[in-house]
Amino acid sequence: MVPANQWIKIKAPATVANMVCGFDILGFAVNNPYDEMEIRWMERLGDEPSITIINMDDYQLPTDPEKNVAGAALLALLEEYDEKLKEISIEKNILAAAAGNIPNTAAKIKFEVKINKLIKPGSGVGSSAASSAGAVVGANYLIGNLFTKDDLVRFAMNGEKLASGVKHADNIAPCIFGGVTLVRSIFPLEVVALPSPQLFVTIVHPQIEVRTADARSILRQKVLLKEAIKQWGNIAGLVAGLMKSDYDLIGRSLEDVIIEPVRSILIPGFDELKKVCKQAGALGGGISGSGPSIFMLSKTKEIAISVEKEMNQLYDGIGLPHHTYVTTINQTGVEVEA
Amino acid sequence: MVPANQWIKIKAPATVANMVCGFDILGFAVNNPYDEMEIRWMERLGDEPSITIINMDDYQLPTDPEKNVAGAALLALLEEYDEKLKEISIEKNILAAAAGNIPNTAAKIKFEVKINKLIKPGSGVGSSAASSAGAVVGANYLIGNLFTKDDLVRFAMNGEKLASGVKHADNIAPCIFGGVTLVRSIFPLEVVALPSPQLFVTIVHPQIEVRTADARSILRQKVLLKEAIKQWGNIAGLVAGLMKSDYDLIGRSLEDVIIEPVRSILIPGFDELKKVCKQAGALGGGISGSGPSIFMLSKTKEIAISVEKEMNQLYDGIGLPHHTYVTTINQTGVEVEA
Repeated sequence: MVPANQWIKIKAPATVANMVCGFDILGFAVNNPYDEMEIRWMERLGDEPSITIINMDDYQLPTDPEKNVAGAALLALLEEYDEKLKEISIEKNILAAAAGNIPNTAAKIKFEVKINKLIKPGSGVGSSAASSAGAVVGANYLIGNLFTKDDLVRFAMNGEKLASGVKHADNIAPCIFGGVTLVRSIFPLEVVALPSPQLFVTIVHPQIEVRTADARSILRQKVLLKEAIKQWGNIAGLVAGLMKSDYDLIGRSLEDVIIEPVRSILIPGFDELKKVCKQAGALGGGISGSGPSIFMLSKTKEIAISVEKEMNQLYDGIGLPHHTYVTTINQTGVEVEA
Repeated sequence: MVPANQWIKIKAPATVANMVCGFDILGFAVNNPYDEMEIRWMERLGDEPSITIINMDDYQLPTDPEKNVAGAALLALLEEYDEKLKEISIEKNILAAAAGNIPNTAAKIKFEVKINKLIKPGSGVGSSAASSAGAVVGANYLIGNLFTKDDLVRFAMNGEKLASGVKHADNIAPCIFGGVTLVRSIFPLEVVALPSPQLFVTIVHPQIEVRTADARSILRQKVLLKEAIKQWGNIAGLVAGLMKSDYDLIGRSLEDVIIEPVRSILIPGFDELKKVCKQAGALGGGISGSGPSIFMLSKTKEIAISVEKEMNQLYDGIGLPHHTYVTTINQTGVEVEA
């Protein structure tokens, strides 16, 4: 564990959820952009708040821990702290707190978190997930990694609930595990890390707002069985392609016949953009999360850069302000620099 | 290639389609039961039929090649023979027929096929697929393996169309490729062979008739999106579990929330059977194809035998005649013994 009062630095990566056909289940982390955070723990005195949030950026996100996604995630962690200590003490037949030199109850812990968001909130690349995941991975490091990654995903999901109203793990899971992750089941939570070959990722963030609630409300509650079958063929193909490092199979499987046809109408120029990116050599791609960002996967950096040019050209052409990123899949997840 | 008039022997394995959550896309071959076949080619004289079917069993299946599944598959192969020869001749810049010492046109070929069905028709373990697949794999061997496995799957699907009215590949693909196969897409056809760890398979065939047409007609045409999402989480989990040899993940993913709840009502004692098999240690299982056979997967032979006992006990208890098999996944597909 890390001594009281000592800051550690955290890098929390952006993530792409709803990986084309893998709506609600497949996501991946990228190396750029990422949030920078710092966290330390202190002895909590009397009834002072157990969490202090310090914003280092200009987004004016709430600092009340119950209204801040990182705060909500940390509160969930603290809530299970005492029980976890007891569990480990019984397992190892020692007093875990004494052995680890950490407080014997959450009531004695206070976390201070500085957040510098480099991932723009609302861009669709897991900005809230990065704050939630970064906070709990950092806090867990401070207390000697008491909790498993699965636990941390559960805690961080409380941040997602605050941000979008729904406990979902499709950004949190890749943010914490790194690489491509499958959320096989949400209740009970099961995250499966999937191996993947090197993939270059081009992301474009058109500067429009797509409200997650809108993106959800336009989805149909029922889908045709024959389309569901097509979708699960592609999902199985995508998982197999990633695990076999078969780029062609990945490319052929990157097709979404259920969500994308509905949601893409919220994003200007989506169909045309996808077309020109694929013509430029991209394996495929789609809406990142619930948008408005769009991502494309490519086999080489050269192709990923050509894809970026196409994106710039198209959105410049229709006068839509936007940002682009060319990056790679992040295989480590949240990183702690102690 | 094999000289004219010389018989070769073929073993065509039974197959399990609709592998739990993988409705219409995932299937696997088993080592027992299997059909025995023999095939030879002869010079076709004048306008005699190009295919002769000789039944060696008592099922009295049609011998008219256009009405026999093996015949229909072979006719599809012969139909593409001339074109394939031309294609290969151009590619290799030689006369393929002369080089391979095979007739230069399908018009000069006659196939004779003996079929001894050991897989009972209508049992739900790919009886028709075995005949169709066995015939075209054997014929292809005779003509020097002109065609790819993908081609053979396409040809054999004509047999399936004859048997069930629908061109489907979920039995044909594992029968020809062996192991566990994914039919990612049916038009255009794409089969992906999936690696899998050793798995023991227990199959029970209750002696009732489930008409494929009935099993199809009771399916709902629309499904809830939230159930589809659950299903595709399990499909992704199953593919990952097979490829990682993670038996627990395989077990947790063997859940079908869409098809099984509807179709299982056609099979007496289904829910109870599944329950007792899982209590006996089976990883999971479900309806084989459209039934009535039920299969269970287990990690060890001992468990697979316990599962068989449970099956026997349950169906003996309700006085339902049945057959059981304890076998393993067949990794080779149709075998030719020349």
